[in-house]
Amino acid sequence: MARTGRRPGTSGTREAILRSAREAFGEHGYEKTTIRDVARRAGVDPALVHHYFGPKPDLFTAALDLPVNPADMAAAMLAEQPEAAGEHIVGVFLGIWEQGSNRHPLMALIRSATSSEEAAAMLREFATTEVFSRVVHALGTPDAQLRANLVLSQLFGLAMARYIIKVEPIASMPPAAVVAAVGPTVQRYLTGDLSTAG
Amino acid sequence: MARTGRRPGTSGTREAILRSAREAFGEHGYEKTTIRDVARRAGVDPALVHHYFGPKPDLFTAALDLPVNPADMAAAMLAEQPEAAGEHIVGVFLGIWEQGSNRHPLMALIRSATSSEEAAAMLREFATTEVFSRVVHALGTPDAQLRANLVLSQLFGLAMARYIIKVEPIASMPPAAVVAAVGPTVQRYLTGDLSTAG
Repeated sequence: MARTGRRPGTSGTREAILRSAREAFGEHGYEKTTIRDVARRAGVDPALVHHYFGPKPDLFTAALDLPVNPADMAAAMLAEQPEAAGEHIVGVFLGIWEQGSNRHPLMALIRSATSSEEAAAMLREFATTEVFSRVVHALGTPDAQLRANLVLSQLFGLAMARYIIKVEPIASMPPAAVVAAVGPTVQRYLTGDLSTAG
Repeated sequence: MARTGRRPGTSGTREAILRSAREAFGEHGYEKTTIRDVARRAGVDPALVHHYFGPKPDLFTAALDLPVNPADMAAAMLAEQPEAAGEHIVGVFLGIWEQGSNRHPLMALIRSATSSEEAAAMLREFATTEVFSRVVHALGTPDAQLRANLVLSQLFGLAMARYIIKVEPIASMPPAAVVAAVGPTVQRYLTGDLSTAG
């Protein structure tokens, strides 16, 4: 991101845009917030917001200081055929959390969702609009959004157990062993039978 | 819990014990804290701590204002034969979260674990000592603690998705449908093959 020849004031403008984005997403949620709203709050032209941060999902990612755009992550996870994506998805997810520096913002995100309804709503809207929609598109079945919910639930819980509460042995196991244990769960959620039980 | 004939000052003493317990568990973790430590901090006899709150797991439950003692919950969950416990476990877990009044303290617990290493360590020690040990005893296999970790991960993530972030459709589905979708995951974690993947 370090660019030469920056005009003075650039980093201040970027920071003002990010602050405005955090406020707007927090107050109005993800869906209702537009790039134009954020620009107005920051007192800049909408084109500048887009120039610095790209489209709305990327602005959201930058505003929350997330290490990856979850929408891009979902796309990467679904690069495999859905019929064989379970292990791949767990592997990509672990790869992000294995970077120690990524954990703090991800933990802050979980903390915020347990702290305020507004933060939970913002996350819910982002997940639904930008992440689940990819899964729905990739699977193309009527129950695809439930399948995306279930995958999210297992990945969230895995992060809690391995990286936050750090219970053993799962906290210290090699990633490949975690992939072997959890991959089939994600695979069943994507393409298996979800109504076998009575 | 409302008892007649309480002596004056009882509720003050109880509150002092709970406050001392929160401090002791927070500072020294679950394992190292003893009923005796808590009594000393509160300036009361250890017998009184035990009289009011019972053994250490129950004192911990009261100090964190949890709706149920997770150790008792684990025992209830494992009342079924492990070979058929998956759905039962998800059902018991949902039953606790379905009570709206139970959610706040459980969310506070998750929030605290994402906020401080000490709180995470306290939870980890409690889970390992009082909860996983029951699963290990019930299963009697060398990988039983990993199995308990995996069950915990799915249950935690399910609570995040359904009750905290509230993504749809899982947030609004009848409990029985959630049990059908998630029960087989818990069953596989308890008694299935965990190393099928490469």
